[in-house]
Amino acid sequence: MTDASLSKSHCPTRVEFGRQVWTRVAEIVQENNWSKVLLLTDPGLKGSRLHRSLVSSLESLGIELEEFDGIDPEPTDKNVVSALRVSSALSPHALVVLGGGSAIDVAKAVAIVATNGGEISDYEGIDTFDVPPLPLIAIPTTAGTGSEVSGAAVITDTLRNSKMAIRHAHYGPATYAILDPEAISTTPQHVAIHSGIDAFVHAFESYLSKLANPFTDAQNLHAIRLISDNLRPYVANRENQDAAFNMLCASSMAAMSFGTTGTGNVHCMAMALGSKYPIPHGLANAVCLPHVAEFNFIATPQRFAILAATMGIDTRGLSTLDAGRKAITAIKELCDDLNVPPRLRDVGVEKKDLPEISEKCFLLNYNRWNPRWTTEKDFLTLLQKAY
Amino acid sequence: MTDASLSKSHCPTRVEFGRQVWTRVAEIVQENNWSKVLLLTDPGLKGSRLHRSLVSSLESLGIELEEFDGIDPEPTDKNVVSALRVSSALSPHALVVLGGGSAIDVAKAVAIVATNGGEISDYEGIDTFDVPPLPLIAIPTTAGTGSEVSGAAVITDTLRNSKMAIRHAHYGPATYAILDPEAISTTPQHVAIHSGIDAFVHAFESYLSKLANPFTDAQNLHAIRLISDNLRPYVANRENQDAAFNMLCASSMAAMSFGTTGTGNVHCMAMALGSKYPIPHGLANAVCLPHVAEFNFIATPQRFAILAATMGIDTRGLSTLDAGRKAITAIKELCDDLNVPPRLRDVGVEKKDLPEISEKCFLLNYNRWNPRWTTEKDFLTLLQKAY
Repeated sequence: MTDASLSKSHCPTRVEFGRQVWTRVAEIVQENNWSKVLLLTDPGLKGSRLHRSLVSSLESLGIELEEFDGIDPEPTDKNVVSALRVSSALSPHALVVLGGGSAIDVAKAVAIVATNGGEISDYEGIDTFDVPPLPLIAIPTTAGTGSEVSGAAVITDTLRNSKMAIRHAHYGPATYAILDPEAISTTPQHVAIHSGIDAFVHAFESYLSKLANPFTDAQNLHAIRLISDNLRPYVANRENQDAAFNMLCASSMAAMSFGTTGTGNVHCMAMALGSKYPIPHGLANAVCLPHVAEFNFIATPQRFAILAATMGIDTRGLSTLDAGRKAITAIKELCDDLNVPPRLRDVGVEKKDLPEISEKCFLLNYNRWNPRWTTEKDFLTLLQKAY
Repeated sequence: MTDASLSKSHCPTRVEFGRQVWTRVAEIVQENNWSKVLLLTDPGLKGSRLHRSLVSSLESLGIELEEFDGIDPEPTDKNVVSALRVSSALSPHALVVLGGGSAIDVAKAVAIVATNGGEISDYEGIDTFDVPPLPLIAIPTTAGTGSEVSGAAVITDTLRNSKMAIRHAHYGPATYAILDPEAISTTPQHVAIHSGIDAFVHAFESYLSKLANPFTDAQNLHAIRLISDNLRPYVANRENQDAAFNMLCASSMAAMSFGTTGTGNVHCMAMALGSKYPIPHGLANAVCLPHVAEFNFIATPQRFAILAATMGIDTRGLSTLDAGRKAITAIKELCDDLNVPPRLRDVGVEKKDLPEISEKCFLLNYNRWNPRWTTEKDFLTLLQKAY
């Protein structure tokens, strides 16, 4: 606790979790007397068993239901505009979203613009709106972004070809998050890897943030423990319901904290890379992670030592410095076990763009949160190492 | 995760914490446009530096302020009636409470009855009211009950000479919790011990509960870690602001979980003992804790092993059973270091009452949550061992 520390802890989302908890969606709609609902779905999930069950459970209530599934993997302002057209025609009482972080982010954007007016780019930044968005029930189908409980939505501004982050700690998170392991049991392997690493990075960067506090530490350390124990088995077999359940809980838990603490250089670099290339956010994170871990180590070796122990590493008899370095090794092993491509060149990044990307990284000002002060030149060195 | 598991995680309280965070109270009152406020204070804190500062910061806003401090250490329905009289005359927009668990419980009871009518005994049980209580800002002056974020208030029914628990997961917790280390820096040593053990027991019993889940595990394990590291130094010197801050965070964290998981035999026995004798709740907990730990061990040796490691015990090379037993030893050492009286006879319990108390324990039905099924005879044996 520093003298200046004044901090907050609050997650407005009601999280419900467990096997078959998707059946709660219709009950929640009924409890709230919502008679018009817009269901947003990842296009790949349209017609899945869960989607069909959800639709028929909502239809059996006799509510007016419209559907929208025009959502890109890295969602854009155009997706939001199209969804808003459907929403305006229906004037729903609530939104339900079945999908990964992209679909949830679009749903959050629709919920904001539906009640605040204008367009989504008006709300880039932090706490930029005052009217509560439409109520939202989110059923994540990946264990990664934790968008269902985080205050943030990331939408590509197609005009500026740049990623916008819309952040609101109180009104950003979904009203309800429904964590059902069945919803992530058919995730393709590469998505399971990218999103799992994304969840790890949330917890990792939030734990190391300059703004970390005891409440965020509790969530981040347990998320790291759960991910270290469950991501490999979940990637190996997505039908492993216990691993899936623990990954879902871990990804939500990790996302409850970064609204308070911010994230760090991994997310900073992934944001900048994602604005330039169509690399999945989780993959960009994964490639940058080991390099940022090495760079940040000297800022807080003690926290790295706790991370190592939390990841299941035997640190007995080691000094804090040596124990802390084990966390970097453990991170590299995790990436190796999951066959993460080790270099930016493997995911389509071009060497000539690195200076431009490092400039963008510095301007994003993650130095608010990242434990080690990072100059533009530092970012360039990091990108070159990752290249 | 069992097949039947459907669970929830949500804490409606906005928790704010840090040095000098008490200054946020007046800001919050202003942000919400509350112009009439009732301030409830533990009688022992009336005139303290923090109390005076709080009053003058509220008065400087020009709001109508009334005060009430008729609160017993184990608060009664009569305290609630007296406070309601002051509240009715003022019709406040919000309540502010500066005090320990007793004062906060009275404030919560007043907030409930003020909007729901009737008397507090009407609301014994779980989710017994529908109208949102008055908004409440709670500034805990002990690190123990976590009443500021828990859904429960415990009030003595003086007619039946019995403790009533009023529980509401959504409407029970305070609207704001203000965790300021200065507020607990003058706590008398015995109160620091009793309330600190109470916080430990919340986390301990919630972690071992049959209803524990990944979200409650995160909070409980970190609370246990913080208490294991900070309770001794805090008891040794209440002016140790870092220890005080960590104890405050730990006690709130632990109390966020037991609304979902319930507690266990320690709390069950403390409830029954507290109904019969004027023993402070935390002290009753402390005397029963080591005996219940021994009894519950066989229900979940693996969780005891994790507890031992979390308490800082070196469990390397030990089997799960042996590591788990170390948690019992660690608990005994904690109680010894804090000079907790080891026997019920030392705190005024009479041997002849033990059968009546064990009957009451069984009827309280903590078997919903306690990991080992406990008969009336088991309770009698536990009480005899603790005697």
